Order: sequence, then structure tokens, then C-alpha cells
Amino acid sequence: MNERLNVAVIGAGYWGPNLARNLRAGSDWNLAAICDLDIDRARRVADGIGGAPVTADLAAVLADPLIDAVAIATPARTHHPIVMAALDAGKHVMVEKPLADTHERGGEMVRRATENGLVLMADHTYCYTPAVLKMRELVAEGALGDVLFVDSVRINLGLIQPDVDVFWDLAPHDLSIMDFVLPGGLAATSVSAHGSDPLGTGKSCIGYLAMPLEGGAMAHVHVNWLSPTKIRRMVIGGTRRTLVWDDLNPQQRLSVYDRGVDIGTVSKATSPDTRAANVSYRLGDTWAPALEEREALGGVVSEFAASIREQRASRTSGAAGLRVLSVLDAAAASLGVYGAPQPVAGRRAAEEVAA
Amino acid sequence: MNERLNVAVIGAGYWGPNLARNLRAGSDWNLAAICDLDIDRARRVADGIGGAPVTADLAAVLADPLIDAVAIATPARTHHPIVMAALDAGKHVMVEKPLADTHERGGEMVRRATENGLVLMADHTYCYTPAVLKMRELVAEGALGDVLFVDSVRINLGLIQPDVDVFWDLAPHDLSIMDFVLPGGLAATSVSAHGSDPLGTGKSCIGYLAMPLEGGAMAHVHVNWLSPTKIRRMVIGGTRRTLVWDDLNPQQRLSVYDRGVDIGTVSKATSPDTRAANVSYRLGDTWAPALEEREALGGVVSEFAASIREQRASRTSGAAGLRVLSVLDAAAASLGVYGAPQPVAGRRAAEEVAA
Amino acid sequence: MNERLNVAVIGAGYWGPNLARNLRAGSDWNLAAICDLDIDRARRVADGIGGAPVTADLAAVLADPLIDAVAIATPARTHHPIVMAALDAGKHVMVEKPLADTHERGGEMVRRATENGLVLMADHTYCYTPAVLKMRELVAEGALGDVLFVDSVRINLGLIQPDVDVFWDLAPHDLSIMDFVLPGGLAATSVSAHGSDPLGTGKSCIGYLAMPLEGGAMAHVHVNWLSPTKIRRMVIGGTRRTLVWDDLNPQQRLSVYDRGVDIGTVSKATSPDTRAANVSYRLGDTWAPALEEREALGGVVSEFAASIREQRASRTSGAAGLRVLSVLDAAAASLGVYGAPQPVAGRRAAEEVAA
Amino acid sequence: MNERLNVAVIGAGYWGPNLARNLRAGSDWNLAAICDLDIDRARRVADGIGGAPVTADLAAVLADPLIDAVAIATPARTHHPIVMAALDAGKHVMVEKPLADTHERGGEMVRRATENGLVLMADHTYCYTPAVLKMRELVAEGALGDVLFVDSVRINLGLIQPDVDVFWDLAPHDLSIMDFVLPGGLAATSVSAHGSDPLGTGKSCIGYLAMPLEGGAMAHVHVNWLSPTKIRRMVIGGTRRTLVWDDLNPQQRLSVYDRGVDIGTVSKATSPDTRAANVSYRLGDTWAPALEEREALGGVVSEFAASIREQRASRTSGAAGLRVLSVLDAAAASLGVYGAPQPVAGRRAAEEVAA
Repeated sequence: MNERLNVAVIGAGYWGPNLARNLRAGSDWNLAAICDLDIDRARRVADGIGGAPVTADLAAVLADPLIDAVAIATPARTHHPIVMAALDAGKHVMVEKPLADTHERGGEMVRRATENGLVLMADHTYCYTPAVLKMRELVAEGALGDVLFVDSVRINLGLIQPDVDVFWDLAPHDLSIMDFVLPGGLAATSVSAHGSDPLGTGKSCIGYLAMPLEGGAMAHVHVNWLSPTKIRRMVIGGTRRTLVWDDLNPQQRLSVYDRGVDIGTVSKATSPDTRAANVSYRLGDTWAPALEEREALGGVVSEFAASIREQRASRTSGAAGLRVLSVLDAAAASLGVYGAPQPVAGRRAAEEVAA
Repeated sequence: MNERLNVAVIGAGYWGPNLARNLRAGSDWNLAAICDLDIDRARRVADGIGGAPVTADLAAVLADPLIDAVAIATPARTHHPIVMAALDAGKHVMVEKPLADTHERGGEMVRRATENGLVLMADHTYCYTPAVLKMRELVAEGALGDVLFVDSVRINLGLIQPDVDVFWDLAPHDLSIMDFVLPGGLAATSVSAHGSDPLGTGKSCIGYLAMPLEGGAMAHVHVNWLSPTKIRRMVIGGTRRTLVWDDLNPQQRLSVYDRGVDIGTVSKATSPDTRAANVSYRLGDTWAPALEEREALGGVVSEFAASIREQRASRTSGAAGLRVLSVLDAAAASLGVYGAPQPVAGRRAAEEVAA
Repeated sequence: MNERLNVAVIGAGYWGPNLARNLRAGSDWNLAAICDLDIDRARRVADGIGGAPVTADLAAVLADPLIDAVAIATPARTHHPIVMAALDAGKHVMVEKPLADTHERGGEMVRRATENGLVLMADHTYCYTPAVLKMRELVAEGALGDVLFVDSVRINLGLIQPDVDVFWDLAPHDLSIMDFVLPGGLAATSVSAHGSDPLGTGKSCIGYLAMPLEGGAMAHVHVNWLSPTKIRRMVIGGTRRTLVWDDLNPQQRLSVYDRGVDIGTVSKATSPDTRAANVSYRLGDTWAPALEEREALGGVVSEFAASIREQRASRTSGAAGLRVLSVLDAAAASLGVYGAPQPVAGRRAAEEVAA
Repeated sequence: MNERLNVAVIGAGYWGPNLARNLRAGSDWNLAAICDLDIDRARRVADGIGGAPVTADLAAVLADPLIDAVAIATPARTHHPIVMAALDAGKHVMVEKPLADTHERGGEMVRRATENGLVLMADHTYCYTPAVLKMRELVAEGALGDVLFVDSVRINLGLIQPDVDVFWDLAPHDLSIMDFVLPGGLAATSVSAHGSDPLGTGKSCIGYLAMPLEGGAMAHVHVNWLSPTKIRRMVIGGTRRTLVWDDLNPQQRLSVYDRGVDIGTVSKATSPDTRAANVSYRLGDTWAPALEEREALGGVVSEFAASIREQRASRTSGAAGLRVLSVLDAAAASLGVYGAPQPVAGRRAAEEVAA
């Protein structure tokens, strides 16, 4: 059995308590500190999980040679300075989504982690749910065939955020899941973003992202803070089967449909008319794989420890976080030109770095 | 009681039998002829509804002075010549959706009807369902407040059409419903269309339309022929309430949610920051109005008769059909430039004509 | 190809038109007559299906030597005299559910059919739906293992019938399906019936049937005319898998769950305590077999023809109808003693006869 | 503001931690001790909620004059001795469901509490959920009219219990809710119980309870440990409206249907035939009241404190717990005679005592 790694949680707001609880629960980690500028808040979190050292002094945490790693759950705009300081102090870093508040700053973080030989992990929590892990496995083993389209809807009566729009608040979930599940990651060739702020809050509350993928498939995301009903649903259509993930149906979160449209044995070189004439329909069985009910964050903190120990990029690496940022950046640019498609800047560059 | 009007059905394919059956069933119409180039097909339709005269001679139908009106259910590309001929023969015309295969040809039809003082009605059947009629009523009476967004999803494992893409096949339903329900009709300022043809059939099988509306709301349509599951769902979000129409849930097709986000008493002139700080949330009751189960097409043929008798535009007029075409045309243009937004040509002009 | 058999439909009320349409549609039958005391009603049915001879004279139909068979859709209390007359006239008979209005009269009919060497078929329509046929197949091939329980719910805001209670109106569906699906038929050892007539209509509007089965399993039926929501759901629990049929979910009518409770390898002779200690749980995949969408009544009329041609009992024979009656009779007896269990009289006897 | 009352939690197993957490959270209580024979278990519970005194010595707890009340979450068969000792020590008592393991022992407890002038409260947690509180309110204010039937289904793949059958494990929930919601409590005139143990575990795993109510309505409960799908659904049908509680649908837990069957203006003295002829159907709107999302146990511990302070019976009193036991006892008797209806012994007696 491995010796426990020492970790500090930075930020005791909404997400920090969950990180602290999971870091304390497993056998990988020793929770060495909970750090928050508001020491009382840190103390309440520590109390709630049966006790842990607390501090308001981030510099002291980073200076502590016993601490191997930090898990950061502070507002997005503070990620860059804290992560850079932590990396420069030789700490491995896990950071809540989104990795940073701009693609440029995210890129700096990823490069610094590479230079310093440290793990930089994006806490893309959904990727560690049993459903998403199974989706990745099914796509990887070819159960769906070639991916034809991905359509994700994440809508709810949501808290309008003071500093980010609905794209930056919700879409990182969908984008990081797509990046995790699709073979080769989320390879969007361009992004068109359509946003709406009908209440005049100063930022989009409703958003749509259309992203043609390399190879001809289409990815689309619908996020919405104004929906009275809650939907969290992703469809991945393939040439062989189509998968529907309905995260709000605990009795059948994942359904794999052996239904679809087949193009006959004609070659791709055939004219469209001939191809259309060879269309047939499959109406086969549906299959819903059993999934454990298990907290994803337990898998996140295990993966963080494993990637440190095995000196490898984590499954949701800084580079993955950066690919998400590159789409968000392109989306912001597209919003500025009324939805005209924008290239995904730095995507290739991002792939060249390793975190 | 009114004397029955004489009507001929033109086209005995998929939709014609439904028209014939409904025209024969009520007390408004005398079904004077079923006309199809394939006389046997016409005869089978007539047999199926208890008998009606049949013919393969369209010219004879149009020349018959006893015939007041024609209901056309032929392929879209034939609408223009048949409708023009019928209008020139002095017949009132109802035509299956879409009104025509281009906005330009639709515009000619609408102008000709106006010039000749004849009714030109679009058979936007969904608009006469109990659910959509109730939606229109609720919006009109202010139950939703100002409309903030409209989101429509119409996906299914659908028949890939030989001559039209998924936008022209499915979106006319969503667009005509939006035009019917929204006060002032579907006033899109531009259209961005994102299509995908991942099977290489030569036309989009998956489509998204983003349409900013006058006044700042957003309308969006998702149509898809490759979905293994069937969804027909429209959400209309308002400042007061939000309506969800789930057409595949016969036990509760329409739900009105008294849930939403309120911006405090600050004026519209206030800065966005102040406005965001005044956000509050309503989590009120849900209400599902009772709806009759009744065939929409019965309402269509009644409205056709009523608009002729009352010498008025029908509730789904040629102008309404033309507004749908103007969006489809803009969508086609947008597809050609990879989804960049395109203006909705002729929208104002369309409003100036009356059908 | 076989020569068509000649058939007359007796009764042109609610169900007769469906019978007539299906008998006319396939290639097995020639619809020789529609017979109803109300000749106009018969004529309307004939018109609606493209024409057929009509008559009000039942005796003439039965005396017609060209007519091979009759399909009877008259009120239950008239089944006995009409069926007996038809059998005595040498006609094969199909009769709407319930077979008769008492077990005794049903028994006479079954015996007479046997004596005369004629087919007597119960029109248990549900048994010919793709879902129920698949259920029977799955049970027969052992996919569920041994059956542990069957639970059926059939509730709706239903038409309160003038002459029958909710048991006789609705439960024949559930009972005939159970009889069809379970290996060896519905082998209830006793019946407890609990009814309620809270509106004072003079007959039960709410009903429950509890039926211990031979072998230790339990069958239960809940029927209700006063439910505002509609449920049609049957669960068949087995030692290996459990099947849920949700007839109102067209996207997934049938689900087979590989979930359940396993008793360890201890023998049945082991004490209950030991057995309880060896309990474990399976939480495997769910599988939803593809089902055609096809009208069940087409299968009914085919089976009627096939059983005549092959000189065999039909899959839903008079004996099956009689087993349903024996449960309904026991239920009526149980109602009379406030729900105390009553034996299922004549069950063995019923099995000894063949129809 | 009131001074806090001192309370000890007895039993640190499955339910105790929830009690401890809620007693510690509000402002009514001071959590003076967590008592368990297994002191380590008690300590773990105390740690998990931020600390509390622990002890293995029940006698010391009861002898402590500072302790006002105890909340008991030990196995059902231990309720009687612990509760009697606590009452004799002058403590107010709240006890997990079921109140006791027999009706007789429960009766003793209720009498002793009355004699000693102490509160004896049943922890019928569900009664304090927002949904059930609203159901009670709707029934009380006459929104449903007269209650015609109550049907409850609580099925799941459940843990087969070592010492109780499915009736004693699950039905107390349904029975206590019915008792809470129905005006005048659960007034069953008799109970028929149908159980099945198809796996041979020595106790019923599937159970049905049919309970005619005073006034002619019918109550029914279906509990099942072998269902692969989870259902928690109660329907309360009334003369004016019908309510459906679907506890697993967080988006619409409660629906009130203005649908039903009306008997015309004829008097109750009219013959059933006349009454049946005057039937009509209402198909009105559906209404889903907004419900808070709030932990029921917070309401339980508040009510316990309030009933002590106000020296009154709690809303889920010992007498209510006893009415549940009287049904369970009658059910056990009915099981012994193959489901024949059994009187609900002691029901009147139970109402005469006050806890």
C-alpha cells in the first residue's frame, strides 16, 4: 500500500467541502490543510467532515515542504495566480472547472506544469461518473461505430452568476464530457455561439453552441438558466448504435439503441442520390447497461493521486481543460459577431503540450 | 345553416386521404372530387372514406364552375404551378406545408391571391391542435408575460426524404407554430442554420436554427432525422410564466410553470450589474390545462370554409406560410456560409401583403 | 394459397367494426356478412370499410351453408345463446371477451364445441400484441427463470358500465394475458376479490384480485374506473430476470431487468433462516427488445383461420376463455364474503375439455 | 426564544445518525448524548456531525435529570422495554416506526405515557415531508371532496430483512401517511392481507393489504421487495378531485386532477340503476402545487419539541403509531387465514387513549 500523499484544499466555498470530504475519505490522501481567506468558513468545512487543520495563509501552505499537492476550488478568475504560484512551489495541482478564465492564461498554466514536471489536473467531475465512464468505454470499443453527432442539453432554473455567462457556467460540463468521451477528444473545427440575455442582466442566460467536428460529425450544446424544468441529456449518434444519457433518470441513465439509418453497400464515392436511394432503417433492441451508484469525486481524487504516483497526465489533464477553454474562447468571439463561426484557436498547439 | 361549399382535393398521396376524410366529415364542405394523376390511387382514397368522385384531370377540376375551392396535397415543388392555376381559375386555395419550394414563388402566390380577392390558406395543421390553440390563447392573454425565448425540438428516426433536407421537412412545423403563437408572428431578425450530413446523403439530416427575435428574445429549433428516440417539445419562456408543450405525453401535453427569474424593481435603464444584483427566483405552482382530444384537421377545414365565407384571411394565411418560407430561405443561405447569420429577406414585404 | 373462408360478423357496435375491418383486410377471410339487429348500424360499418353484405337476420346467417365461421361481438349476456346456435349450425366461432357471462354457460359452450368438432376461440386480443407475444416467448424459453409473481395494474377514468362491474369489464384482459403467458396457463389455487363502490352505482368501480398460484407464486390484478391517470402495466418477476410491460410507453413497452434477489446454493430443504442469510442481489443490465408496431386484431383473425384449417385449438381457445371465467366466478363469490379466498371451481374440469 | 431542551439519541445504527444530525442542527434541542451499546459506533456518529457526548450506558442517560427527552432508533423488538423505562424515568419519548413489535406492547406504551403525562411521539418521518403535509392540507380543506379510495404502491428491490416481513418493513410508511392525511385517521373496518414468499425465505417478500374504510371508501397498499423498478406512488381519489403523489418525480411530486366521475343530482336513496344512468365525466385541469425541498426530519424534531412545550399530543402521536400497529396486527392475523378479512382489534380503544 502506498504512503498517503499530503494535500491542501484551497477555497472553502461551494465545491471545497466536497473536495475535502472526498480527499479525507479514501486511502490515497492525507488532508493536510483547508485554506480560505475566511478562516471561519474553512473551520466550518473542517468541522463538517470530522476535523482537519485550517489556515487563511495560502503562502504558508505553498511553502510547506510536506504538502505534495493542492486542490483548488476558488473563483475562476483566481485560478491563474494560485495555480502558477503552486506550480512554482513544486506542488501538483488539481483545479476546478473551468481551468482558467481565458485560454491564454490556461495555456500558461499547462506549459508551466510541463516545464516543472508536475501534474496539472482539471477537476472535470462528470467524467468520473459511472455513466460517463461507460460512455467513453462504449465509444472506444466501437459499440456506436463512427460518431455522427453529439447533442447535449443542460437546462434548469439556474442561479444567474455575478461574473460569468451561461456558457462559462454550464457548458464546461458538456464540453469536458465530449472531450473525454470522443476518440481523440473534442475536435471542433469551428464554433458558432448564439446567446440571449432577454432579462437584460448583462450576460447570456440562454446559449447554443454548434461545433462541426473533424470528420464531418456535428456537436451541439444547449445551456439555459431560464428553463422551469431540468434536463440533462446527451445523445451520441453513431453509425452502428446511438446512446442516450439521461442523467435525471436514475432507473435508466444510459440507453443504447440499436436503431438508426443505414446507407447501403455503396462506396463513399457514390453520388448522394444513389446513396440516398440505398437508405434502410434498423429498429433493433435497446440495452441499458447497469451502472453503479457511486460518487464521482471519489474517482477524481483517486485519479489525481494515481497520476502523481505514476508520473503521467491525468485522464482529465490540463490539456483537456485547455481544449475546453479554446472552445469557450471561440464561443465568446462568435458571440461578438452575432454567431458567425469562429476557428478554435490554439487547438493544435494545445495538443502539442502535455500536462 | 350555410350551404356547403364545393371542394376538390388535389393529390391522393400521404396527406390527401386525411384531407378528403375531414372535408367529407363536417357540414361545411361537399367533397366534389379527388384528383390525382394516378386515378387508381384517387379511387382507393375515395373508397376508404365511403365514396367520392375521382378524376385524373386537373384542368377539368379547375374549369368546373361549381367548384369553389381546392385543397392541395402534392409535392412542394408542384405547389406553385397548381396554386397559380387554381387562383387564376377563381378558386380559393388551401395548400399543404410548405407553401412553396422557394420564398420567391410563395410571394407570387400570395400576391396573386390578393389581386384576385381569393383566400390562400396554409395547411399548418399543428396550429389547430387543442394544445397549440391553447398556447396561442395563453400568450395572447398575457399569461406568460413578455416572451423571453422559444425552444423547439422535433427529433425522431425519420424517413430521409429524396428531395428535401431536414430543415424543409420538419422545421415548417416548428416555424409555423411559432408564427401562430407569438404575438405579431415569428419576427426573426436573422437566421443562423447549422446542418450536418454525416451519412453523406447529400442533404442535412440534423439541423439547428438560431433566430434572434425583434425585442431581444431568442427562438431556436432542433430537427433531426437520426435520433433513435422521439421528442416533440416546445418551451416558451416568459417573464411571468413558462410553458412546456410535450406533444408525446397525452396525459399532460401542456404545462404552465409559475417558475422563473425576476429582476427587481430597477428600471431597464439601470446598469446590468445592478440588475443582476436584484435577481430573485419564483418557484410557484404548475398548471396543466385540460385539452380536448380532437383531430386538428377538422379545425383546418372549418377555418378554410369560414375564411371564405367571411371574406377574410385565414388564421394560417398565405402570408403566414410566406413568413415560414422566408426563414427557410434565410436558413438555406446561412447553411451556404457555414452558419453565419443571414437576414430574413422580404419579411417586411410579406407583412405588407394580405392573402 | 388457401381458399378464403367465409365469415360473418355478428354485432356492429363497439368492437364489431374492428373485427369487420380486419377480417376484410387479410387474405384468410371473405367477409360474407355483417349482422346486427339494427341494420343501419350494420350498414354504417360496411360503408366504413369499403362495403360488405349486411343483414339483420341472424338465423339466415347461421342457416347459410356457405358460411364457415362467425365472429361474435355482442353483449356478454347474449354470447351463450348465439354461440350455442352457431355451434349447432356447424359454424366455427370466435367470441369477444368474456367468453360468457357465467362459468357454467361458458362450460356448456366449450363442451358443445368439442362435441361438434368445431373451433371455439376467445378473442383475447391483447394476447396477439407484439409485446404479449414476446412476453410469452421469453417466459417459455426460460429467460425469466421460475415465475415468482405477476402484478397487473389497469386503471383509467373509465366508462362505468351499465351491466358489469369493473372486474368483468377490465380484468378479463389481465387474466387472459396471464393465462396466455404463464407456462401451463393461469393456475390460481384461490381468488380473493376486494371491490369498492364508493359512488353507490350498485357495482364495484375499484377492484383487486389476489390469486396464489400453484407452485407458490402470487398473481395480483388492480382494476379501477376512477383513476384520473391511465396505467397499463404488468410485472412478471422471475428467479432469473424480471419483465415489466408498460403498454403506454411506445418507446419502450417491454423491459427485461437482470436484477433481483438470489438465494444462495442452499437446498430448498434448508431452514428459512439459513436461506435468508444466503441472500444476494443482482443489479445487472436492462434490455428492451424491439417490437413491431402492428395491430393485434390482424393476428387474431389469422389465428382463427389457422386453427380452423389445421383442425386444432386456437392459441386463445374456449378453454382459455373458460379459465378466465372460472377466476371471475370465484372473484364474484369472494366479493360476496368480503374478500375471503374462494376456490377456483371447475379449473381442472376446464383443462380436461378441449375446444 | 425558548431554552433548548436536552435530548439523547438511543441507537446509532441506520437511522440514529439522521436523528442526531437534525437534533443538533435546529434551535430547539441540545444534543446531550448519543447512546449505543457499541460505543465506537456512537463515536463515529458524533464525529460525523461535529461532535457530541457519547455513552454506552442507557441507565445513566435515563437517570440524568438534565435530560428531557429521548429519541429512540433501535430495533423494533427493543422499543417496548426502552420506551417503558424512559417513560418511567420521566422522559418524553420519540420512537422510530413501528412504534412497537406488537399492538399489545404498543398499547402499554401509549397508556403509560398518558398516565405519566409525557409525550410519546411516533417518528413517522414521511408525514413531515412537504408533499404529505400538503396532501393533508388539501384533504382537510375539502379540495378532494369526500375520499373514495386510497391506493399506495411502495415497491423496490429491497433488502430482505432478517427479522420482519415486507408488511412490517414497508407498510408502516403507507399506513402512517394514510392515518395522517385522512380526516379522522385511518379508519379501516377490516384488513385482508395477501403475502407471498416465493423464494422461501420464511417471510412475505410481496404483500397486499385491502382495507375497507368506514364510510365506504377503500384503502389498498402494495409493498414488494422483489421489484426491479422503484415505485412510490399514492393516489387519493375524491368526489371532487383526485390527488397523485409520485415521490420519485422531483419535478412534479404532487398532481391534483380535476377529473372524475360525477353522479347526477339524484339522492343517495335513489336506486343504483338510476344513479348509474346519471353518471357524467369531468375532464378538467391538472394542478401541481409548488413544494419546498426540505428535509422532513427537521420538521419531526421541531414537532417533538413543540408538543413537549405545548403539552399536547404530537401530530404523529403514540395513538397514531398504535393505529398503524392495529392494522399490522390484523394483517398478520389475516395472513394466517389465507387472506380472509380480519377486524382491526383495539382501534376504538386506541382512540380513547391520548398520548
